[in-house]
Amino acid sequence: MNLPPEFALIARHFRPLAGEGALDLSDDAAVLDIPAGRRLVIAADAMVEGVHYLPDDPPETIGRKLLRVNLSDLAAMGAAPLGYLMTTSFGRGVADDWIAGFVRGLAEDQREFGLALLGGDTTGTAGPACLSLTILGTVAPDAVLRRAGARAGDDVWVSGSIGDGALGLRVLRGEIPADAAGHLARRYRLPEPRLALGQAIAGLARAGMDVSDGLVQDLGHLCRAGGCGAEVEAASVPLSPAARALVAADPALLSSLLTGGDDYELLFTAAPEAAATVQAAAARAGTPVARIGRMVEGRPAVVVRDATGAGIALAQGGWSHF
Amino acid sequence: MNLPPEFALIARHFRPLAGEGALDLSDDAAVLDIPAGRRLVIAADAMVEGVHYLPDDPPETIGRKLLRVNLSDLAAMGAAPLGYLMTTSFGRGVADDWIAGFVRGLAEDQREFGLALLGGDTTGTAGPACLSLTILGTVAPDAVLRRAGARAGDDVWVSGSIGDGALGLRVLRGEIPADAAGHLARRYRLPEPRLALGQAIAGLARAGMDVSDGLVQDLGHLCRAGGCGAEVEAASVPLSPAARALVAADPALLSSLLTGGDDYELLFTAAPEAAATVQAAAARAGTPVARIGRMVEGRPAVVVRDATGAGIALAQGGWSHF
Repeated sequence: MNLPPEFALIARHFRPLAGEGALDLSDDAAVLDIPAGRRLVIAADAMVEGVHYLPDDPPETIGRKLLRVNLSDLAAMGAAPLGYLMTTSFGRGVADDWIAGFVRGLAEDQREFGLALLGGDTTGTAGPACLSLTILGTVAPDAVLRRAGARAGDDVWVSGSIGDGALGLRVLRGEIPADAAGHLARRYRLPEPRLALGQAIAGLARAGMDVSDGLVQDLGHLCRAGGCGAEVEAASVPLSPAARALVAADPALLSSLLTGGDDYELLFTAAPEAAATVQAAAARAGTPVARIGRMVEGRPAVVVRDATGAGIALAQGGWSHF
Repeated sequence: MNLPPEFALIARHFRPLAGEGALDLSDDAAVLDIPAGRRLVIAADAMVEGVHYLPDDPPETIGRKLLRVNLSDLAAMGAAPLGYLMTTSFGRGVADDWIAGFVRGLAEDQREFGLALLGGDTTGTAGPACLSLTILGTVAPDAVLRRAGARAGDDVWVSGSIGDGALGLRVLRGEIPADAAGHLARRYRLPEPRLALGQAIAGLARAGMDVSDGLVQDLGHLCRAGGCGAEVEAASVPLSPAARALVAADPALLSSLLTGGDDYELLFTAAPEAAATVQAAAARAGTPVARIGRMVEGRPAVVVRDATGAGIALAQGGWSHF
């Protein structure tokens, strides 16, 4: 009995990714147990060819980016990874080699982040590829990091560096020259989910989320959820050396870094007296963090100030994929 | 601070669908607890416009079909629904009214099947819409229905009626005339997940799955998983009155019903001595079931026999979406 291409594709490419509970991807669903004393954390993010990644991005990094943007949602909740399901609608005529590369990237990140495929579905589309991933994680009941909870007076913190992903996209589009080390393009293609940091600050941070739609817009979410405003000192926002060099040459670029997407850093607030503890937790997690401003009384709005204290005009509120 | 269209769309359309644990769709992930003594069952199926549904299907039934094909996977495992996540990549320029209809259908089925939205993502695509849904359910540890376990000598059972979905698609494409009651088109658009039956036969059935890619192909899966063959009596396969009338007029149609997709019935095997218990369980679940053949010794293959005992030639093995 010959099986149609859909099943052959699953057997050849996806079955090797399957983990415990996936039932070898041969049943109608996965069956698993959540460890005692842990809560289930679950999120789903999709990526569309030409919207969230470029058609000529390497397939290895596309699979990894899909997994990592979802892992970033777990990080934002203070959760640890458990597994994932994935539905792929590949464009008609996708090459077997391309799928092999996509899967190779997933396999690499499964090892790096300690999780495995639990199930999903594979189909075709006449349009751009649509990739959807559902991520499962767990968290201790008293260590859930939420968006609500910021208070006026809190410090605002962000991990890593801001703006690399948005600059990387412009590099890959040929709009600006690439940095010699390829740092910016790599940051666009391979975000770094801050899982260790998320777990380290859960309980310390008053509110937190990941920055996926631009720092200013996402800080606006923390404002709305907390019923307060925020002030950011532009000079305190951490930039990579590559981004810093570009901003030095063109200071107007800064505004687009603060509102660009694809950062996948953690943004959180904490009481000022917790600052040293936050720094210590971040050091244990091996992730740099920077204090970029504070939450303030008033309506939910974000003001970014330059070195003179003047507000900086921002080109756009953030990035919408719709 | 104005929010971009993506957030407005989520707030207006999807937030009213959100259930407990969804955190109002305002956080990066949902957080929930699996009831003590239950295992988590999880599956994900995608639908692509023009492949799994027709572009002019009513949006109400598209949302419901997306939910129901996933609920059918829970039914196939003997599980009860808990919640779902959904990623939608709508075509550019989708009308707000269309999305409102899509959501209205989901809301109706949430009430009918007792579950709610937990999270997801909304984006756009330049191509056909891609809809992906991840379904969560729970099952008692000793009541998981699996594909493996069929033995030679088992009866083969199927629920409801076979072939309506495949005929409904042909009706909607204008290839065959519609039945007066509209039964066939309705069955294509609104499959009936056999949740009560799946839970009722878990423990009784030796092996089971849902029929989504054609009866013959899916029975082939039970054969391979059980290491045996299957023989089906064509005359025993349950047909709706509408399908029966079409087959009476064109007997050659039968073969395409046995291999067509979109049935979403339960297919399972049980020991012959359990037949009366299976019938009683199905009656309690309010779902008709029919014995259509038996598992046999030999290589994993499906033979369909006519009333004379002769094998029927089958046009194709089943339906592949790829």
